[in-house]
Amino acid sequence: MSKAWKIAEAMYANDSYSQWLGIDILEMETGYCVAKMTVREEMTNGFKIAHGGITYGLSDSAFAFASNSQGRKAVSVETSISHIAKVDIGDVLTATAKEESLSNKIAVYNITVVNQNGEKVALFKGTVYRTSKDWEIAE
Amino acid sequence: MSKAWKIAEAMYANDSYSQWLGIDILEMETGYCVAKMTVREEMTNGFKIAHGGITYGLSDSAFAFASNSQGRKAVSVETSISHIAKVDIGDVLTATAKEESLSNKIAVYNITVVNQNGEKVALFKGTVYRTSKDWEIAE
Amino acid sequence: MSKAWKIAEAMYANDSYSQWLGIDILEMETGYCVAKMTVREEMTNGFKIAHGGITYGLSDSAFAFASNSQGRKAVSVETSISHIAKVDIGDVLTATAKEESLSNKIAVYNITVVNQNGEKVALFKGTVYRTSKDWEIAE
Amino acid sequence: MSKAWKIAEAMYANDSYSQWLGIDILEMETGYCVAKMTVREEMTNGFKIAHGGITYGLSDSAFAFASNSQGRKAVSVETSISHIAKVDIGDVLTATAKEESLSNKIAVYNITVVNQNGEKVALFKGTVYRTSKDWEIAE
Repeated sequence: MSKAWKIAEAMYANDSYSQWLGIDILEMETGYCVAKMTVREEMTNGFKIAHGGITYGLSDSAFAFASNSQGRKAVSVETSISHIAKVDIGDVLTATAKEESLSNKIAVYNITVVNQNGEKVALFKGTVYRTSKDWEIAE
Repeated sequence: MSKAWKIAEAMYANDSYSQWLGIDILEMETGYCVAKMTVREEMTNGFKIAHGGITYGLSDSAFAFASNSQGRKAVSVETSISHIAKVDIGDVLTATAKEESLSNKIAVYNITVVNQNGEKVALFKGTVYRTSKDWEIAE
Repeated sequence: MSKAWKIAEAMYANDSYSQWLGIDILEMETGYCVAKMTVREEMTNGFKIAHGGITYGLSDSAFAFASNSQGRKAVSVETSISHIAKVDIGDVLTATAKEESLSNKIAVYNITVVNQNGEKVALFKGTVYRTSKDWEIAE
Repeated sequence: MSKAWKIAEAMYANDSYSQWLGIDILEMETGYCVAKMTVREEMTNGFKIAHGGITYGLSDSAFAFASNSQGRKAVSVETSISHIAKVDIGDVLTATAKEESLSNKIAVYNITVVNQNGEKVALFKGTVYRTSKDWEIAE
């Protein structure tokens, strides 16, 4: 198992909210993560479509897994999300996080969320501060 | 009861996710909302602090209530959030949404989230597209 | 000449600031624009590297050309930019604007700016409101 | 003269682009800056209103002066701007930068830009990474 997978698994094991969302990590590489979840009734807002916090939450988890996969602990400093299509109960969302830029202290990721028909539903951009603490994972 | 309160109540009554978050609306005025919630264990991430999706979700709800309070249905087009201090289990978060700008089609809101000690934990900025559909609320 | 090119040319002909920047439009397709410029001494900030307003300005122009190329007048509602590498005097910047999402009223674009070595220097995301006014361009 | 003023003056003296914009710094305090400029014809876009790069440039300069005023060199990591009202030739713009949050490594600022009638024309949010290098300014 790669280091990226081991770190993501260690993070996920303690990540109660990602578990509540029902997130399933499909792929993990250094700087890259694909994660999936299904929208439930309790995740909807007053318009009976998925609350913005749900697609944000999925994206933010994929962002966290991707940005920590380098081996250094990374903390979110700024994120933005555009909700570009509505998400219904039962929709299966897949978030793909890609590293756009990596420097010693700062890294930037784009996360694209699509539904089961491959239609984009959200665009997320996130910036992390890379701390000097390493993940201690046996390789 | 003001129209702003009636719209927010109508939205909240169907908003399963805001209910799951345990959001309590404290104040509602036109273009303004104050909402509160308490962080539970199931809302935490792999670092055992509140997941970014939680403060985003609270902010996004306050943003939705404030931006719909004008009487026209408003949909989020772009939001950003900076997580500026960690949030622990048991922390009580209060989000205050203020209208920064309002035009016929577009409006912008700033939402500031503080904890029980008055410390800022997140800064959210959100833009809505104001549809031509009105909330039908008996006044 | 395609409609996208004609609209971009009509915009550029009146766009004094894009001319001051020395922007050269290299490619135009519907929802897509590639634009180039060279950084001059008068474009630098107190650190003697390109001012953030310069890479923003180039990106914003490519964003405007791409988002108006559909034939409807589009106005910027929210933009963000990450300056991820320093830009020096003499650097040649190329901005590529791609449409990420298009609906009746709202569209989203990502603009990536690279230098003459192909290194990314800025990541820009922009959202427009699409008005109901068309560009009147003879086809 | 305060340290905040001395740093801003040192930055401005080398800042060719802020000089080209005609920026005048009106107030400087630690974490706070007010800066003014007048829009000229060469700053307009294809709609003959101020190009987005101009209000961005003014905001970004006020952001830079405010975020460096603490005495540590600060670099922009992510910025966003909403252009909420059009800006015409001859308009006098005033940007006010306020520190919203300050930690050891990261700080966040909101910059509000108003015209000569006190109408808001742009809302800017910026995040800096605070380096470990100090400004060497005789006090």
